[in-house]
Amino acid sequence: MVATDNVQKTPPEEATFNLVAYLKERQKLCDNALDRAIPIIYPEKIYEAMRYSLLAGGKRVRPILCLATCEMMGGTIEMAMPTACAVEMIHTMSLIHDDLPAMDNDDYRRGKLTNHKVYGEDVAILAGDGLLALAFELVALKTPANVNRELTLQVIVRLGRALGAAGLVGGQVVDLECEGKSDISLETLNFIHRHKTSALLEACVVSGGIIAGASTEDVQRLTRYAENIGLAFQIIDDILDITSTKEQLGKTAGKDQKAKKVTYPSLWGLEESRLKAQELVKVACAELEPFGDRAKPLQAIAHFITSRNN
Amino acid sequence: MVATDNVQKTPPEEATFNLVAYLKERQKLCDNALDRAIPIIYPEKIYEAMRYSLLAGGKRVRPILCLATCEMMGGTIEMAMPTACAVEMIHTMSLIHDDLPAMDNDDYRRGKLTNHKVYGEDVAILAGDGLLALAFELVALKTPANVNRELTLQVIVRLGRALGAAGLVGGQVVDLECEGKSDISLETLNFIHRHKTSALLEACVVSGGIIAGASTEDVQRLTRYAENIGLAFQIIDDILDITSTKEQLGKTAGKDQKAKKVTYPSLWGLEESRLKAQELVKVACAELEPFGDRAKPLQAIAHFITSRNN
Repeated sequence: MVATDNVQKTPPEEATFNLVAYLKERQKLCDNALDRAIPIIYPEKIYEAMRYSLLAGGKRVRPILCLATCEMMGGTIEMAMPTACAVEMIHTMSLIHDDLPAMDNDDYRRGKLTNHKVYGEDVAILAGDGLLALAFELVALKTPANVNRELTLQVIVRLGRALGAAGLVGGQVVDLECEGKSDISLETLNFIHRHKTSALLEACVVSGGIIAGASTEDVQRLTRYAENIGLAFQIIDDILDITSTKEQLGKTAGKDQKAKKVTYPSLWGLEESRLKAQELVKVACAELEPFGDRAKPLQAIAHFITSRNN
Repeated sequence: MVATDNVQKTPPEEATFNLVAYLKERQKLCDNALDRAIPIIYPEKIYEAMRYSLLAGGKRVRPILCLATCEMMGGTIEMAMPTACAVEMIHTMSLIHDDLPAMDNDDYRRGKLTNHKVYGEDVAILAGDGLLALAFELVALKTPANVNRELTLQVIVRLGRALGAAGLVGGQVVDLECEGKSDISLETLNFIHRHKTSALLEACVVSGGIIAGASTEDVQRLTRYAENIGLAFQIIDDILDITSTKEQLGKTAGKDQKAKKVTYPSLWGLEESRLKAQELVKVACAELEPFGDRAKPLQAIAHFITSRNN
């Protein structure tokens, strides 16, 4: 009887929410929109280079977070799609530039040769610049008219900040400065990842909310959700670098240890790091409780982050 | 008597318009605004690298064009200043990335060591990315509320397009492809310069007009003015590369000839190129005649472009 009671109390959404199918469907929507965003015209080489990295089959976690938040807050996929494409372009641009010989000097990404290995360093730098320009153009041009124009400008501010010296770029600079040093403090490590990883994830989530007209209080709630999954995401990334093979990751594995890089597992150990990531995801999900069943996708994505293996 | 008549017929604006003083004043306004736009906070290195190139004493032709057009069309300096700063940031970012070893491999710019010679290639790439992010953030955040929000979004679209594959980036890719080739057609040469030089100059002028609420017809007029001065600007650049010293240019001189690069003077000769540039400036100025005396600054700037020596 008790068991039956429990089953009946479970809301149908929870019983039937299928994250795998949800992610697959959203990934397809994003892939199609990204594909449509970049034609191949003269000079073909730059459009091909931009498409090569952008359409290399990423998981589309960032754009999906943006769409899911917009929907949770009462908006539509159409309202958020230009911004969703923009965050994936910004993310891809940061990967292309990070992989350059002058930076992390990586040959593989998402199981394929990195952009500069295929198109040369010069074109890779320009492909990143081109993706960045297109990201902002897309949000300004394609965000539908039922999104308040002031809110669209706020999204552009968020994206610019997440990308610039107060975000990705600032995090990468500190990361480069720490290279080869084994005495990095937890504070510095947190700075790097808050800027390199969390800032853009936060912009994805918060922008999705802003587009749907979220209140200041809701934006704060979304920010806390994003901060927590951002750190969890990075901890899992560090763990995977240790425990996975190149085939599983689609990029060079074991790089952190080889470079004697300070990471969360190197500070806390693997098991403690896993527990910490799980705890962060729990806190993130709790932030969304006021949104009830509508928060299911974002909560499921948070759990997915700690269970992923690539 | 005739001479006296002529003097009296000259409108006072024309008699007293002092371009040197005008440019000096505007340059100071731009320098101050650019200085204020980038603080030096942690991580200092990236902000210093961004400031190093941005505040290296450029002529500020692009932001001044933006401000001058906005004023000519009835707007104010305050309305256009965030966009004026943004175009200078985009221009500076393109110089930093173009100077990299993987691209033009230049050691000097504006009389100083290039960004990567001072801060390293990694930081130089990131400083460019950071300037780009800040450019868009600035327009979206700081354009005053008396500028229609829809028009502010249109400016962002113009900037994105001028910078991306349909602008600067596309022009640079074709320029790189033409390196070392001596059989470049005039059509290809025009494509390169329309994208590398004119696209951003056009965005400066047209954005200034859009901010002030220019009509579609006026925007077309401004576009034609900008296209003509853009090409004239590039022809003069090619001429100066031949006729100037490194000290005069503040960057390496004679590069085009050394690289056997196809340029306008190499196709037409020096004298014919000079005449062509003067003709383009004349056409550009004629486009602005309907605006009467308000067009004086933009017309004077057009003439300044063909008479400059660095």
